[in-house]
Amino acid sequence: MIPSLTYDAASDKAREECGVFAVRDVDDASVLVALGLHALQHRGQEACGITSYDGLGFHSERRLGLVGDNFTDPDTLAGLKGRMAIGHNRYSTSGSGALRNVQPLYADVRGGGVAVAHNGNLTNARALREELVASGAIFQSTSDTEVIIQLAARSRKTNSAERLLQALRQIEGAFALVALTNDKLIGARDPLGIRPLVMGQLDDGVIFASETCALDMIGARFIREVEPGEAVIVSDNGIESRRYAPAEPARTCAFEYIYFARPDSVISGRSVYEARKRMGIRLAQECPADIDVVVPVPDSGMTSALGYATEIGKPFDLGIIRSHFVGRTFIQPTQAKRDLSVRRKHSANAAALKGKRVLLVDDSIVRGTTSKKIVRMVREAGAKEVHFRSACPAITHPDFYGIDMPMREELMAASHDSERMREMLDCDSLGFLSVDGLYWAVCQEARNDAAPQLADHYFTGEYPTRLIDRDRAIAAKEQQLSFLVDA
Amino acid sequence: MIPSLTYDAASDKAREECGVFAVRDVDDASVLVALGLHALQHRGQEACGITSYDGLGFHSERRLGLVGDNFTDPDTLAGLKGRMAIGHNRYSTSGSGALRNVQPLYADVRGGGVAVAHNGNLTNARALREELVASGAIFQSTSDTEVIIQLAARSRKTNSAERLLQALRQIEGAFALVALTNDKLIGARDPLGIRPLVMGQLDDGVIFASETCALDMIGARFIREVEPGEAVIVSDNGIESRRYAPAEPARTCAFEYIYFARPDSVISGRSVYEARKRMGIRLAQECPADIDVVVPVPDSGMTSALGYATEIGKPFDLGIIRSHFVGRTFIQPTQAKRDLSVRRKHSANAAALKGKRVLLVDDSIVRGTTSKKIVRMVREAGAKEVHFRSACPAITHPDFYGIDMPMREELMAASHDSERMREMLDCDSLGFLSVDGLYWAVCQEARNDAAPQLADHYFTGEYPTRLIDRDRAIAAKEQQLSFLVDA
Amino acid sequence: MIPSLTYDAASDKAREECGVFAVRDVDDASVLVALGLHALQHRGQEACGITSYDGLGFHSERRLGLVGDNFTDPDTLAGLKGRMAIGHNRYSTSGSGALRNVQPLYADVRGGGVAVAHNGNLTNARALREELVASGAIFQSTSDTEVIIQLAARSRKTNSAERLLQALRQIEGAFALVALTNDKLIGARDPLGIRPLVMGQLDDGVIFASETCALDMIGARFIREVEPGEAVIVSDNGIESRRYAPAEPARTCAFEYIYFARPDSVISGRSVYEARKRMGIRLAQECPADIDVVVPVPDSGMTSALGYATEIGKPFDLGIIRSHFVGRTFIQPTQAKRDLSVRRKHSANAAALKGKRVLLVDDSIVRGTTSKKIVRMVREAGAKEVHFRSACPAITHPDFYGIDMPMREELMAASHDSERMREMLDCDSLGFLSVDGLYWAVCQEARNDAAPQLADHYFTGEYPTRLIDRDRAIAAKEQQLSFLVDA
Amino acid sequence: MIPSLTYDAASDKAREECGVFAVRDVDDASVLVALGLHALQHRGQEACGITSYDGLGFHSERRLGLVGDNFTDPDTLAGLKGRMAIGHNRYSTSGSGALRNVQPLYADVRGGGVAVAHNGNLTNARALREELVASGAIFQSTSDTEVIIQLAARSRKTNSAERLLQALRQIEGAFALVALTNDKLIGARDPLGIRPLVMGQLDDGVIFASETCALDMIGARFIREVEPGEAVIVSDNGIESRRYAPAEPARTCAFEYIYFARPDSVISGRSVYEARKRMGIRLAQECPADIDVVVPVPDSGMTSALGYATEIGKPFDLGIIRSHFVGRTFIQPTQAKRDLSVRRKHSANAAALKGKRVLLVDDSIVRGTTSKKIVRMVREAGAKEVHFRSACPAITHPDFYGIDMPMREELMAASHDSERMREMLDCDSLGFLSVDGLYWAVCQEARNDAAPQLADHYFTGEYPTRLIDRDRAIAAKEQQLSFLVDA
Repeated sequence: MIPSLTYDAASDKAREECGVFAVRDVDDASVLVALGLHALQHRGQEACGITSYDGLGFHSERRLGLVGDNFTDPDTLAGLKGRMAIGHNRYSTSGSGALRNVQPLYADVRGGGVAVAHNGNLTNARALREELVASGAIFQSTSDTEVIIQLAARSRKTNSAERLLQALRQIEGAFALVALTNDKLIGARDPLGIRPLVMGQLDDGVIFASETCALDMIGARFIREVEPGEAVIVSDNGIESRRYAPAEPARTCAFEYIYFARPDSVISGRSVYEARKRMGIRLAQECPADIDVVVPVPDSGMTSALGYATEIGKPFDLGIIRSHFVGRTFIQPTQAKRDLSVRRKHSANAAALKGKRVLLVDDSIVRGTTSKKIVRMVREAGAKEVHFRSACPAITHPDFYGIDMPMREELMAASHDSERMREMLDCDSLGFLSVDGLYWAVCQEARNDAAPQLADHYFTGEYPTRLIDRDRAIAAKEQQLSFLVDA
Repeated sequence: MIPSLTYDAASDKAREECGVFAVRDVDDASVLVALGLHALQHRGQEACGITSYDGLGFHSERRLGLVGDNFTDPDTLAGLKGRMAIGHNRYSTSGSGALRNVQPLYADVRGGGVAVAHNGNLTNARALREELVASGAIFQSTSDTEVIIQLAARSRKTNSAERLLQALRQIEGAFALVALTNDKLIGARDPLGIRPLVMGQLDDGVIFASETCALDMIGARFIREVEPGEAVIVSDNGIESRRYAPAEPARTCAFEYIYFARPDSVISGRSVYEARKRMGIRLAQECPADIDVVVPVPDSGMTSALGYATEIGKPFDLGIIRSHFVGRTFIQPTQAKRDLSVRRKHSANAAALKGKRVLLVDDSIVRGTTSKKIVRMVREAGAKEVHFRSACPAITHPDFYGIDMPMREELMAASHDSERMREMLDCDSLGFLSVDGLYWAVCQEARNDAAPQLADHYFTGEYPTRLIDRDRAIAAKEQQLSFLVDA
Repeated sequence: MIPSLTYDAASDKAREECGVFAVRDVDDASVLVALGLHALQHRGQEACGITSYDGLGFHSERRLGLVGDNFTDPDTLAGLKGRMAIGHNRYSTSGSGALRNVQPLYADVRGGGVAVAHNGNLTNARALREELVASGAIFQSTSDTEVIIQLAARSRKTNSAERLLQALRQIEGAFALVALTNDKLIGARDPLGIRPLVMGQLDDGVIFASETCALDMIGARFIREVEPGEAVIVSDNGIESRRYAPAEPARTCAFEYIYFARPDSVISGRSVYEARKRMGIRLAQECPADIDVVVPVPDSGMTSALGYATEIGKPFDLGIIRSHFVGRTFIQPTQAKRDLSVRRKHSANAAALKGKRVLLVDDSIVRGTTSKKIVRMVREAGAKEVHFRSACPAITHPDFYGIDMPMREELMAASHDSERMREMLDCDSLGFLSVDGLYWAVCQEARNDAAPQLADHYFTGEYPTRLIDRDRAIAAKEQQLSFLVDA
Repeated sequence: MIPSLTYDAASDKAREECGVFAVRDVDDASVLVALGLHALQHRGQEACGITSYDGLGFHSERRLGLVGDNFTDPDTLAGLKGRMAIGHNRYSTSGSGALRNVQPLYADVRGGGVAVAHNGNLTNARALREELVASGAIFQSTSDTEVIIQLAARSRKTNSAERLLQALRQIEGAFALVALTNDKLIGARDPLGIRPLVMGQLDDGVIFASETCALDMIGARFIREVEPGEAVIVSDNGIESRRYAPAEPARTCAFEYIYFARPDSVISGRSVYEARKRMGIRLAQECPADIDVVVPVPDSGMTSALGYATEIGKPFDLGIIRSHFVGRTFIQPTQAKRDLSVRRKHSANAAALKGKRVLLVDDSIVRGTTSKKIVRMVREAGAKEVHFRSACPAITHPDFYGIDMPMREELMAASHDSERMREMLDCDSLGFLSVDGLYWAVCQEARNDAAPQLADHYFTGEYPTRLIDRDRAIAAKEQQLSFLVDA
């Protein structure tokens, strides 16, 4: 729907919303889900949940915080009994009623229970929700996932998998979804394959996961990606592939390659690590500079900076140190004029910077606020020159598919030209990877403008689906609804 | 539905399920609700909640524990903004997903939000719930209250009060209900007036409360009882009385007089304290004994024992001391053969018992387990004789209207005659008030067998309503449903 | 030392500071201590602790809150291993570093560990503490108990019991103390026997407890009181009685009879219940009135009101209802002029009051603030006249022995004559028991002015010991010390 | 004393015990201490504490967990009032009574309060503790820091700084200590300068910190290191340097350069980052290999791997990904034979490894357990060859100065020759930096065997101080003491 409020303003990074993981036909299913979610922790760190089914009933635990802090206790895991389970990591549970929105969500429906976890965002969730409420549905959360569940509950089909398929046909947007019923495990991906979802195997068990790195974590074998518009249904009768939408080539979100996915994951057959390195190589070709040292903005700029340094044949050095103990925002000492907040996360390593012409590489620039502070910090540490490079193209359009990003007005590149941006960051030169360069790095071929191989609306404004809720919101000033503030 | 598992076996007391309180058109509505709920704390001590509406949105806090521990913090109360609010005390939130069942429950429905709190039990809740689920409703709790809300959500009426009235017409059982919408406060009572609900006034504000003692707490004036089958709707247009069921004389639950209500409350114009004292007086007339001292089983037997002692002209003495610090069940020391559990709550005061012929008065005997331990404890403290009197008639039938009580098989009087019970309690004589005596004490007139003035099924087996869920459960061995165990 | 800040201003009751319980040579010692402390819960409700010794090491749990909420968990109790244990209930842990002051306190000293719990107050604690700090001692708490432990640690004796005896010889004040070493259990009482301490037996085990009701709780047999100035040392060699101070007849605190002790306890051979009833009888003789009904201020005035009513031959009725769910202080609704705070705890039962001449009996009047509110509440409920009686003499002097009471200026009877007090309470007549009446009720003989049988300084100003810290504080305006505010 | 039990067996890394930070004469002293401790978070992550003094009293907060989770709340910091404060980070608070051992520790001593925080370990703490207990001291913690405080409390000096100096003269070992009295801030370093401590300036304020990176964090200027055997006393009279031990050149712990310190810190004028890079360069010279790619074991091997890759002119690639969300230990799924634990923290990036001859660089090898798992993981990801290099010399001796490390028997290099170690790790070649190489990298000069410039006992067995407690423990089987297990 509308871009959410949880964009990580402090670090000026767009944020992925979620990760999903699911298994069927393994012992200790919930232990494997916990391990898989741990491998996907980078996709969402504020809440996590696991729901299992043991042949008699469903068991669910939903918690705020990290998987490693919530799902390592043997008692907790022992309570999540059964040989099938699904799990979810998520960002952004701030605000009221937090736990109500933590997934998996569950409902008793006619014919049994159903639990659903999903990664992504529907572009017609609000419209569907209003219809459902008008016909008497009661929502217990504000999440898109519940729209899917309510649609499934309303379906006249008698089979739980069919009910879910009927629901999938009514929604639009980007999603990777896993669902658990009394007898089936289901994995489904949006019609365009914007969000990633892979399938793996461990002994006789079947696994669904947002990324391949989660298969590696549990020692499972990668089988294939779930295809766009496909729902894979795993039951005692085996694995059934169902299409609920026409077959289309996947149009994976470009930001999965740029920032979200873990570098050791493989998406659509392409190594994320390789893609990032190629972004750096191409960036060096497109935006070279006469400098002494290439310094990554850690951790996100590491791989592309390595590619850049190799390509221009200059030293790669760790001129910025990142703290992994960030925690909540520190208050500022009143006596200090200087802004210390950036130093909580990054600090300059003068030994690698002093007296040098430094080229900083980051994966992207969103609002530019953090980039600006880093440039200043590097200068204060004694750098002679500071050049800045973004390993992805200039971001000019917001996302509506589950990526936390500021509104268009706040995107630096949406309203400023290149020279103005350089002045804002106060760097000696500034460069962005081109859209063609991005396609070269990721797809190893040129963009097909008729049917782009990536969801690249951030840079092009070409949204891959309709934006129903957005358009309705623009058309009519939205009516104020009653809302519940729950603790 | 089926008698719940939360019956207080440790003290062998039937337990009331809930208390409700609501205000409209007062400043700091939530503060008054907190005070009112505190006065009704005896009706439910395991959880409490308050929902307010401030003209813009609903605010809700639901907590485990006592009102005085949860709703005295100024920050909490300040967050519950607005000039209308409803609140609820409840027992028995043990088990999984506890907080989901704490009231008030809330739902966004077409046309705005609605919050409901109710005291009592529906006798067709399970049947209605199954119908609703079959047509696509998703329940977030296991409480009867949500059945009412789901029915209201399904209504085609456009006005929230009308939707609620339509829901009330579909339910059966005993209930006192308060509801809050965007503009209205509603108080409604079951068609037979089994559960109590009164209306009061404070300056320009209107109050609904389970008992008059809650009006006294906030200094409000008693106006009248909400009538059986009546819904009182308070809006900016004033107070409107609506009948959703035919007018019938109230048939208040006899146990409100015997045990549940606070002695300083007045129900149907009758002082609870006076009624209890008259039970003692009549008991003395019906079951006298040649004894030295009348000793109440505290606190429940205090008032009737006073009446008894006065009537037979014997000393009233505090021969049993009650601890008010009971807490959770203590484990037993392994070395001890003797059962110490009764002493956690009651202890014998030898100074008042030694060498005496003691007559104990309690309000009721349910399973007899605690009564038996008390008799033994009094004997061990040196009493020469121990006589036992119950200030209500023998309980032979379970309740289905929200009172926690054991199944029929466990009710001592359901399967034993008077002499056998005396042997079980090991007392020198045993006596129960008669049903006629109860009517004399409470109603000051004889029982009208055609239309009894009290819900007295505990003693007579004459249930005032149909027992739809009970009958269905007996007819068919109930099908095992999927269930969710949530933390 | 100086009267503490924890006096219960809300209820206007003086408060006992502590209860102690100890056992040796029983299985599951900590379970028995938990039960014993539960029976002594009325002596302190804000914190509790148990320390056990299992032949290898000491185990300790100290918690905020009630025994029944903290020491009923089997895991907690299983961790408190061993056949000897001591325990403590306490009030007033408010403020900083709360848990540091919860007893039992423990120290490693030369020759082994020692744990101590004590009830009472030293009158030279501050003086001793200053000496100890000057010679290098580091205190971990602000409690008097630690003074005793530090003195024992400094002793040159090699035997832990001897070290403790040496410490006892240096302290002054009122105390009942239990201590646990690697091989001994010790119970000791102050030289004048101001605080109570009894000894009991259960099978082969020895028990020390503040009151006999705690022996009853665990089914133990009362043996005798620990004598003033005596330390009883229980070891594998049996029970040894040691005098660390000259033998004197006990001079028990009068307030134990009036208010603190549980009515089913026996102190110095006198039933507390009987004593209270005699206070009421004598009060009726000394201060009769022409009234219709005698109403106790519950719970403290119950027994004396019964005595009063019996003596004057008038009905005893429960005209005031007490809530046992008080919790924290409620905030007041801003719109209300009237003070609702008293109603949280007490409410008027109009059925017993309306149109009557009412005589209220309470155990004592401290500041008079609550008494005044109760008189008004009873009038508002329709009483025609309201008379007030205190079942103890007028309190004119503060305590320095561990009783929470306001400073002298705040004691109503310290600065007002009887008529002025009647006006302040706004009652129709006011009466106090005489000091002679108190001795008649408790001791059944007249006060021996040369050697009073009770610590009755509250009424007479005759303090039974020196008040060293008080006198030093008066002599010199106290120097401000560094202090630590810890969380 | 004896090597502790908190060595991080899961990651097979030796662990630093603590970091300290202190300020005087700045506004919001506690805010600056919080920021400084955050910069030192890598030195201890299990607990943290701050104590301030505001001219009237001391204020202290001690918490389990990270600085950023505990000391960012404005209310908490506002409570730590004053213009002087000290703080501490620490590892290893596991076990009972955890919070009692969290620093700063505080004591009221004659003449005022004193708070102390220290990093390091005394080698005669146990001996001193036994003497103190024998003379009547009562310890509230098991930490070495309290030994220092108890010694200061016993001193006959009247001035708090003098008392502390007298205590410092009695202790042996390695320590950097900060202390706060009513008027002074003190920073002191052990006689050999094994632990680092620097002094900085911010406006008129003085700062002490374990590392320079903490000065950078708050924008303070580095002044100088506190010298070995020096105590710097900051009071209203200015900064006074006191020697409590003879001047010696610093002999800084080699592991500060190798692993503990943050790369952007400077110790004894040497950049930690430069030193690590030089370790990699020298390692490449001493132990070259014919390989395709140099891969760091992140994060600890990053800098030395960069040096290595540069020196041999081979690509540097991120072949191992480290998760920063580790949390508690995961339980293993029972069905899995394979050990998944290493993957929680590290995962192989096949894109950088497949088909390649890989050379792994880590900072050190302790037990070798993790190194072995990493080698296997890299092989499983498709590496053709796997070579392993340690950027520090072989560790053959345990530490007794506050570094968590396993006992000698568990150190891989203590009992195996090089070829055997290669077999154990199952790598194609294995190499360690030489001791000479270490000196070249850190000191840029050869080891002075008469007076080594580093504390290098890990590699040489030459301990810089006496090991009194260790020797006593060996001489006599230690007597079992009573101990307290507190919750």
